[in-house]
This record gives sequence, structure tokens and C-alpha cells, in this order.
Amino acid sequence: MIRFNSDYTEGCHPAILERLAATNMEQTPGYGEDVYCAAAAEQIKEACAAPEAAVHFLVGGTQTNVTVISAALRHYQGVITAVTGHINVHETGALESCGHKCLTIETADGKLTAEQIAAYTDAHYADASFEHTVQPKMVYISNPTEIGTIYKKAELEAIYDVCKERGLYLFLDGARLGYGLTCRENDLTLADVAALTDVFYIGGTKVGALFGEAVVITNEELKRDFRYNMKQRGGMLAKGRLLGIQFLTLFEEKRYFEISAHASRLAEKIHDELKDMGVKFYVDSPSNQQFVILPDAVLEKLKDDFAFEYQARVDDTHSAVRICTCWATKEENVEALLAALRGLLR
Amino acid sequence: MIRFNSDYTEGCHPAILERLAATNMEQTPGYGEDVYCAAAAEQIKEACAAPEAAVHFLVGGTQTNVTVISAALRHYQGVITAVTGHINVHETGALESCGHKCLTIETADGKLTAEQIAAYTDAHYADASFEHTVQPKMVYISNPTEIGTIYKKAELEAIYDVCKERGLYLFLDGARLGYGLTCRENDLTLADVAALTDVFYIGGTKVGALFGEAVVITNEELKRDFRYNMKQRGGMLAKGRLLGIQFLTLFEEKRYFEISAHASRLAEKIHDELKDMGVKFYVDSPSNQQFVILPDAVLEKLKDDFAFEYQARVDDTHSAVRICTCWATKEENVEALLAALRGLLR
Amino acid sequence: MIRFNSDYTEGCHPAILERLAATNMEQTPGYGEDVYCAAAAEQIKEACAAPEAAVHFLVGGTQTNVTVISAALRHYQGVITAVTGHINVHETGALESCGHKCLTIETADGKLTAEQIAAYTDAHYADASFEHTVQPKMVYISNPTEIGTIYKKAELEAIYDVCKERGLYLFLDGARLGYGLTCRENDLTLADVAALTDVFYIGGTKVGALFGEAVVITNEELKRDFRYNMKQRGGMLAKGRLLGIQFLTLFEEKRYFEISAHASRLAEKIHDELKDMGVKFYVDSPSNQQFVILPDAVLEKLKDDFAFEYQARVDDTHSAVRICTCWATKEENVEALLAALRGLLR
Amino acid sequence: MIRFNSDYTEGCHPAILERLAATNMEQTPGYGEDVYCAAAAEQIKEACAAPEAAVHFLVGGTQTNVTVISAALRHYQGVITAVTGHINVHETGALESCGHKCLTIETADGKLTAEQIAAYTDAHYADASFEHTVQPKMVYISNPTEIGTIYKKAELEAIYDVCKERGLYLFLDGARLGYGLTCRENDLTLADVAALTDVFYIGGTKVGALFGEAVVITNEELKRDFRYNMKQRGGMLAKGRLLGIQFLTLFEEKRYFEISAHASRLAEKIHDELKDMGVKFYVDSPSNQQFVILPDAVLEKLKDDFAFEYQARVDDTHSAVRICTCWATKEENVEALLAALRGLLR
Repeated sequence: MIRFNSDYTEGCHPAILERLAATNMEQTPGYGEDVYCAAAAEQIKEACAAPEAAVHFLVGGTQTNVTVISAALRHYQGVITAVTGHINVHETGALESCGHKCLTIETADGKLTAEQIAAYTDAHYADASFEHTVQPKMVYISNPTEIGTIYKKAELEAIYDVCKERGLYLFLDGARLGYGLTCRENDLTLADVAALTDVFYIGGTKVGALFGEAVVITNEELKRDFRYNMKQRGGMLAKGRLLGIQFLTLFEEKRYFEISAHASRLAEKIHDELKDMGVKFYVDSPSNQQFVILPDAVLEKLKDDFAFEYQARVDDTHSAVRICTCWATKEENVEALLAALRGLLR
Repeated sequence: MIRFNSDYTEGCHPAILERLAATNMEQTPGYGEDVYCAAAAEQIKEACAAPEAAVHFLVGGTQTNVTVISAALRHYQGVITAVTGHINVHETGALESCGHKCLTIETADGKLTAEQIAAYTDAHYADASFEHTVQPKMVYISNPTEIGTIYKKAELEAIYDVCKERGLYLFLDGARLGYGLTCRENDLTLADVAALTDVFYIGGTKVGALFGEAVVITNEELKRDFRYNMKQRGGMLAKGRLLGIQFLTLFEEKRYFEISAHASRLAEKIHDELKDMGVKFYVDSPSNQQFVILPDAVLEKLKDDFAFEYQARVDDTHSAVRICTCWATKEENVEALLAALRGLLR
Repeated sequence: MIRFNSDYTEGCHPAILERLAATNMEQTPGYGEDVYCAAAAEQIKEACAAPEAAVHFLVGGTQTNVTVISAALRHYQGVITAVTGHINVHETGALESCGHKCLTIETADGKLTAEQIAAYTDAHYADASFEHTVQPKMVYISNPTEIGTIYKKAELEAIYDVCKERGLYLFLDGARLGYGLTCRENDLTLADVAALTDVFYIGGTKVGALFGEAVVITNEELKRDFRYNMKQRGGMLAKGRLLGIQFLTLFEEKRYFEISAHASRLAEKIHDELKDMGVKFYVDSPSNQQFVILPDAVLEKLKDDFAFEYQARVDDTHSAVRICTCWATKEENVEALLAALRGLLR
Repeated sequence: MIRFNSDYTEGCHPAILERLAATNMEQTPGYGEDVYCAAAAEQIKEACAAPEAAVHFLVGGTQTNVTVISAALRHYQGVITAVTGHINVHETGALESCGHKCLTIETADGKLTAEQIAAYTDAHYADASFEHTVQPKMVYISNPTEIGTIYKKAELEAIYDVCKERGLYLFLDGARLGYGLTCRENDLTLADVAALTDVFYIGGTKVGALFGEAVVITNEELKRDFRYNMKQRGGMLAKGRLLGIQFLTLFEEKRYFEISAHASRLAEKIHDELKDMGVKFYVDSPSNQQFVILPDAVLEKLKDDFAFEYQARVDDTHSAVRICTCWATKEENVEALLAALRGLLR
């Protein structure tokens, strides 16, 4: 069985395991107050061209989203998100369990626009009974989005402008940030992301680490007391150095970008070759998640050899599935998939 | 200024004030453990033909919704509601502040259907990552809805069947229940409502009381420890008898229904006469809230004499407003409004 | 049965009922945006000598405590309180249900001292793992306390100094404030209370109103967005004018203080006469709650005629009970009680 | 610097790192639905003699405590804990942030007794205003406790009897369970722990793993929907197999107990030799945490070579510190410490 169903099917980049082994019996302070976390934070600040940023390491994405958002909001404030936003769909209401409402906006492609954010916020304050509704105070976007689309630099600039004008914090969920920043349509750098948000995170779990997400806070207001929040939300790892070691390994020698580029190249190969085969796409995604429409008969024949994530029934004879590449995807497995499809779709 | 902007513009039915005065210096136990609350509960159980029901009195609607829903749900469970549901829109996220997500469904008329509820719930359990999404466990409906529409008996029966089959609690928000049960399209009785839900409430604030909502719980599972919930949510009034006295006054001699019928009749009069004048309706509502589309020029001329609630811009020259009647609405004021409109719309 | 068991056994001051009747059929805007609330707020600001204060009206004490405290705190912050504080004991964990921990301090008499607050806060920041514990950010005191004791001006000044030095908000729960400010040991004025706290409330429920608490906010940081908080916590009464009318009636012509003084005088009479009879006190309270130790045999004989609140078993033959006076207590009932005790204790 | 300040100073048992490396490029399903988690759960159930138990893996202790407790309780219910309980002190109010109050009991040695639990619960229901206070529904104990003491089998039996009689769930925090079960005073087996609680967890973070806690649920009521809770609390690790692999390695060949016994033996060696040197103990602990009182002058001399955790000032010239051993502690480091102390205390 070759798995393309998600981008967290393997362990981690071998260099991480090596370093964990090399440092295993060292004694360090706990809770992220060790030299590896400090060094990893420095590497990340440098990569972000954000020397004043605060960098914190958490274990997983849901935990990170909840910790960041609930740290920023008052009880009566909510976060604007696409309906498809991970926080609104796939976190079992973690954000609501911390008291905050997702203020949802329908989108065509998983991406919010500056106009939508402005309109939502302006409508809130124009309503005579505005105090009877949740106050929008933060905007949550994912890059790439949950359906693989990416923000262009001009789009992010426009969104951040709207946020600053209206007193909204902008938070970018970068669970797959590496795959967004290395795909061929991208025109953003990591430094752009840092400059055009108040807080964002660099996903490790899906990009080479065993686990781990690095939160980068550039807005002074959001830096205060962040570690209290981490601890309260269960996100302060006792052996915090495990996170430091992993991110240090990913950011020294730019490994994070190299392994991301590998996944992007393979996703583009799949995309281009499937397109040549006449396959239709369920979503037009430029990044490591490809959403393709295939005949049910073909899916049935592939199912013992390849795992995909089911998305939706498209018509009586077709379904949409997600095909993910990641840092660990083997070129030979992509070749095997393409060969199989070429045979079946002929 | 004659106010039609809401149904809570006046104080209360005079009989309530008289009784409050008559009992004012009596000494009673607090927190709803007095003889008036007991007597009012008995009257309500009788009116509901639900001798085994538990009846509790709370002060306001938001408080009641939060107390009932959070008493029924576990942390990871949510409540299915129309997008327009009061809990989803006009309670400043009170439900989310207690940890629960509103699981929203788009509707044409503010009403959920049995089919929608079944489909939503079945889709939840059919999803391989169902544990990553909030579990639907309760259905929230309002009758009349927030936009004045009402459930017919067959609709409520179908919904309750779906709920029972799928292990969902059905909660009916009756903030304006009297106005729903006395309008001419209605075919439900109060006993039907009690028989076809797990818990509902009878609104007093908008129907003759100074304040107060009577929760009627028929499902045994939801009765347990309800007073702990009330106290925790700030809903246990120290001088609980004030609620008992009010509901006793409303339900003795069927005053609740008489005063509701008055409001319904006046709303129907407005509806019918405006229709005759060729006015279009923003929502086709059979109950005490009428949503009408009027020329902006007309609204401008009315604005010093009549207050409405603004709803929406309809086109370049028209807007929609809400006109409410209630137990206290004077027939002469309705006549004045109709006369003014007749003059302006000619 | 004559009830001395609590200070909310009757309805309200007759002048309030008269005014409710006189204004009953007036139409006003809802949610506290009416002329009565505005006028009452003005009266209160004047009585507090705090022209810049924000005044808001809520229905009950638990709701008020939760709304004020959760409006002031971030998720990881807690409130310092005496172990006996109402928020820690008798609100069914309402504060914790909003996410905040009570940081409790043992006291001899229900009163916190400036020294205790300073020591608690300093110890927090001196601890190397301070981020693993809840950050103290607010101090909650009641005046009178839950056991009837009161703060002297010098004590309140010292507490407020400590709070300001350490960045703590000071919140005073005045559920029985009138009774504290009119007892003979008191040296505080209402203006002192306003000047020496960041936020406090003036209790109406126990002091002449049917219900209602007036929150007075003097610290700018706590004023912002307060109405969102009120709505979210279920504390924004639809017919908000009911609160405005009540507080206006209580504060025009200084009725609040007059009726409080009545209760204080009767409590002092009970205290002095019982002391003369040789009765011991469970708590040495100067205000309207008297905690007295009586032989069980005496209590048994009184129980059909008088209601007290049971406090504790003191020894094999004695128990402590609470005797409350209030604005409505009749002098003749106090005489009856004293006569009965004189007979039984002889 | 030799660290004795905590029991999470090193990485993990080398066999775990080897297995992580050996399985690194395998592709598995995520979120704990892989073969390693299944196999580890089987090993644990066997070790617990609890074939019907449900076993779930979480990342850290705070997260585990919050997930288990909030899964068991309704909003108005709280958990009885020693004042010194980890949930009450060192989790930044994580439990309160989920809405639940810690119902604290003072203890001499960090251990609750059956009598205390019975008395607390009985007093709750005996109070006429019981609904105004948080309902006790769960008991939280740690074994070993936060101060190193352990429960004997008879004590645990008595506690569980009281819990069952009163409808309380018993939850045992086993963050250091291995060290409790292998110290010389212990008379409990892992099977006893499973039989005498409703839910408990086996700590990995402090006992040989990089991270990870294994929750064992034996009470049917607590098994339901547990994975929803895990996901909502941020505790469902994407690469769940990392937890499965670690616990499988620890429980195959009984490594968990062997490495725990190593730590226990070294702690006992420290204890016995210090006692021989005349050192006094701040707490009389039989397990891997030793709380010793040393002259400040001695501590000053040790501070460049050895790290301890500061506990408290004992008198003008002495302080208490915590000395921890763990699975990774080297005998030579213990010898070095003892030699240094022998020299300084002579």
C-alpha cells in the first residue's frame, strides 16, 4: 500500500532522528527553556527577517490554533474564518470550547478576500444591535488553505491593510507553510509572511518533523504572557528541547525549504501529468494537496495499492479524492501512481 | 412616537402589577422555592397536559437558551440550528462562551426541516474523521422563528421523529410562543409542543410579563440537576417568587392565550391591510412580527411618529422593516399606522 | 412565621412598585437604552462623586460577579478572594465555568488584608515556574463580607495601594453595600468606595429593589465593550428600564441610604440586646447579618415562629444561626423575636 | 552540571529511539489508528489485567488531566483534590479554563483519605443550599503524589469504596506511576490500580519516553466518545504512532518496570545515605522524589555542580530542595552527589 492520503504518514527527516539520538542523554532544563529552543528560535527569526519576533514551540496544529487565538481574544470576541477553515471544521470545536465563535464567510476557493473582511467588520459596527453579536477581532487564514490554494503577496497585503485599519489581528495558519512557499505559483517569502501578519506559525508536523509547530509573533500586544497561555492549553512540552532540536535541524542549512520544494515538485508533476491525461480537478490547487476527480471504477482498481483521502461524490460515476505529497514522498511511488493511472485512464 | 419596533416596549399586564403589589410584603423563601413558583408550575403542567414535566423559571431568553443547552450537552457536542437562530446570531456568542458550537444550516424561512436534520447528522457519522468534528446532539428551533414563521404540527412531528431516531434532543425556543400558538395559520396546541419536544420554554418577557421564561422539561435525562445549571449560569433569581407570581397570573384564567391572541389579531390586520395596499413582504410571516418592504420616502415621512426595526436595504428606493404587535399594542395605534400608510402609499 | 433567614424575603420598597405602575404602559427602547436607566446612572454617579464612571445595571449578584470579573481577566488570570468569598462558595462555580480560578486566601473574619494580597502576588512572581500557575490580576472583596464584617477606610486604602502597585484590579462586591455604609462602625462613604476601587457594585436585590445590581466602573480599562460582556453573560435585561426605574427610585431622595439605615439600626438593636442577654456570637459582625450562638433547645422552641439560616454546629448543645434584618424588617417583628428570646434564655 | 532537579531532564530510553528509527519511513494512518497504538494498547491491557479497558495515548500530563476530567464531568460538577494536587497548582488553571472547579482538601502528606472524601461529599448534600455550590463528582489522586508519597493498597481500596458508594469517579494521575509501583514501600500492582480506579494514566514522559501518557479507562461510562474529547483538547497527535511505538517499547519485555526500579533504587540509596548523614527531610517520601533540608552554605557550594529544585525556606540557615532520580540517572552521578554531601556535611 502506497499512501498519498495525507502529508503525515511517515516519521521525520533522518537528520532529526540523528540529532535526537546524539543529544539523547544530555540533561537540559524543561519547558522550552533549553539551548536548542533558543537556537531554533534564532534561526527562525533570521529566516523571517524578524529579529524582534517572539518564537514559541507547540506540539500540534489544533493546540496551536486554540492557544494563539484564545490568547488574542476577549471572551466576547470572535475570529473571522472561511467556512472551510480548519478551526471551523476539523478541530471538534476546540475554539468554541475555549469560548470563541468562528465568524464564518463562504468562499469559492478557501481564501478570504480583503473585501470580505472589510464588509463583515463594517456590517458588524453598522448594526444598531452590534453588542448583541460577537465582535470580530481576529482574522484566521491558512496558507496553503485546507484545499491547497495559496495567497499571492498582493492579496495578503490587501488583507493586512484591512485588518490594520479595522483593529483586527491577522493570524496565518502555516501547518503546510513550506509547501505553499515552494510551489511554482507562489510569490511570497517567509519574511513577507512575517511582515504581513501579526502572528503565524510554521508547521513542522507535516513538513519534516515528528511533530511541532513554531509560532512567530510579531505584534507586541500578542507577545505578552504567551507562555501562561501555552501551559494552560496543555501546549508546554515537558521535554521542550525535542521541539527545539527538530526546528533547529529543519532551519539550519535551509532543510525546511529543500524538503518542501521536493514535495511541491512531485505535486506539480502529478498535477501536470494528470491534466495531460484529461483528468478534471475538484479544486484547482497549486500546492502539495491535489484534489482530483476520478471514475469510481478506476478508484476501485487502485484501492488495494494506493490510499487517497475521499472528498466527495461528484456524479453517478465519479468521486473526488485528495492526493498528498510530502517531504517523504518517494519519486518512485509517484511514478507508480502515474503509471497505474495512465493504464487505467487510457 | 408610537413604537412597533419590538414586542418588549411596555411593562407588563396590569394584573401582574396588581398581584406583585398585593403580595409585596409577604415573606417567602428565595430561589424559586416558594408557593407561587410551585403553583405556577402546576398551572403550566396542566396547560401542557404534562403532569410529569419539570418546570423552572428563568429571567431572560439568552440565559434560558444557554442554561438549557449547556445542561444537555457534553463539551464536544453541538446544537443544530438554523443560521438565523437566535443562539447563532443575537446572543453575543453566549453559547460558544459556554463551550458549544452552533452547527448551522441554511434555511429559506428560518425553519429547519426533518430532512435537513437527518442529513446533517447522518453525514456526521458517515465521515471517517467524525471525531474531528463537533458531534450533533441537540436540535434548536424557535416557534415562531426569529422571522415570524411557524412550525405546523406535521413538521414538528417529523422533526421529533428524526431526533428520536438519531439520539438528538429537541429544544424549542418559545420566546414568542403565545404569538405562534394563536395566529390563524397555527395548528399546534401547547400540549402538542410539550409532547413533541424534549424541552421548551414559554416566553414571558415578550408576552405579558415584566420578564421571565418558563422552561418545561419532559425528557427525564434533562431534568437531573437542572437547578445547579441555573445557579451556575446566573439564572436563579433570589426573589424567585417574582417569576412564580407572573406566570401564575398569566396561566390562571388563560390570560397568556388571550393576550397573545390580541397581538395575533392586530398583526393579521396589519398584514391583510398592507397586502391590500399592494405592499410586498420581506418575509411571509403569519405571526406578530411583520416584515414589510416600504419606499424609503415613506419611511422617512413616518419616522417621527412611528418606530420600526430596520431590517435590510432591498433596492435603491426600498427598505425592509419589522413591525411588531404584542399583548400591549393598542388598536388605535394600529389604526393610526394603517391610516398613515394608506395616505402615503396611495 | 416571621423570617429573619435572609435579606431578600420581601418584594420591594413600595415607591418602586408605584413607579413601575405609573410607567407601565410607556413605550421605551430596550436593553437599558432608555431614559430611566440614563437618569438612574446620573443619580448614582452623583452619589458616588464619580462623574466619569460608567454605570451598568444587571439583574443578580452571581451574574454581576461573573460579568465583571470575566470582563477584566484574560484566560490565564485569576482573582484573589477570601476562602469565604461568595464567588468561591455560593455561585456553583460560575466563575470557573467562565474559565477563571479563584485564588483563595484564608482569613479570620472574611476580610482580605493588604499584606495578604501583596504576599500572594509577590510569591507568584518570585516562583521560578510562575507561568505554570494562574496569574493573579484582580482582587475580589465584599463589603460587608459574607459574614457581615466591614472594611474600614484605612484598610480599603491600603488594599487599593497594594493593588495599584502590583497591577491588580480591585473589585468590591456590594450586594449589601447599603447595610455596610450605614452601620455604626462604618467610616466609608459611597464616594470613598468609588475612589478606592476600580469597579464595584451597589446591590439592589437585598436593599429595597425587586432585583438589580448597579455596576460602577471607574477604571478606564474596564469600561471598554462592557455591554458585549453583559449580553454574552445573559445579563442584558430586555426591559432594561425596570432596572433604571428601580435604581432611580432608590437614589432619588436618598432612599437607598434611609432604608439601609433602618436595617442597620434593627440589627444593632438585636446585637446589643442579645449581648446583654449573654448570647455569644459566632462571628463578630457589625452589620445587618448577625451570627448568634443559641442553645439547640431554644432554637427548637423558636422554630415554628421564626426562621433563621442555619450556620454550624457549635458544640453538643449549641448551634450558630444567621439573623438578617433588611429594609423591610418590621420593628414589631424584632421586638417579638427579642421578647421570645428573653423568655427562653432567662 | 549534574541535574537532579526533575525527572524529565534527558531524552528517552535508547530502545525507543532505535525503534523510531527502524519504523521512521513506514507509512501509517494518523491519529492513533495505526498498528503500533493497537499493539501498545494490548500490552497495557495485559499488564493491567484489564482486557475490557479502553486505552488512549496523549502527549503530556496537563493535557491528559484536563481531557480525562472534563470528559467525565458536567459543567456544574467539580473534582475533589488535595490542595497540593497538580491540577490545583501547576497547570495554570487548565481545568478551570475548561469550566471545572477544583474542590480542595488540605492534607498532611499530599494524600487524600477515604474519610475526607466521604465527609466532603456528605457535607455537600447535607447543605440546604447544595445547588449553590459545585457538585463533587470525581476524585483526583496522584500516585506517587506531587510530594513523593504513595498510596497503600488498603488506602486505595477504602477510597474506591467511598467513591462507589457516593457516585464519584476515581481518577489516578500516574505521571510517575512506575516510580510509585517499584519503590520498596509499595504494595500495589498495576492490576490493582486498574481494578481500584475508574480511570488512570501511566506516565511515559517521566518514565523512559520522549513524551506520552497512556490513559486506561475501566469504567464503561467514561469510555464513550473519548476520542472526541482528545481531539477537542488538542491531544490527538497527528503521528499517533509515535505514542504507540514508545509505549510498545516500554511495555514489551517489562522495560517500564525495570527502568522505574532503577530510579527507585537510586532514590532509596540517596534517602538512606542522607539519613545516615543526619540530614532531615522536608517530606517523608518513599519514591523517586526526595525532599531534603540542607544548610544554605552547603547548597551554595553545590550549586555549580548539581541542580536541584528549590522548595522552600525552612529556617534562617536552611532550605528544602527536591532531588529527583529517574530511569536515566547514572549511578556515578548519585555517587558524586553523595560524596560531595559527605564532604560538606561532615
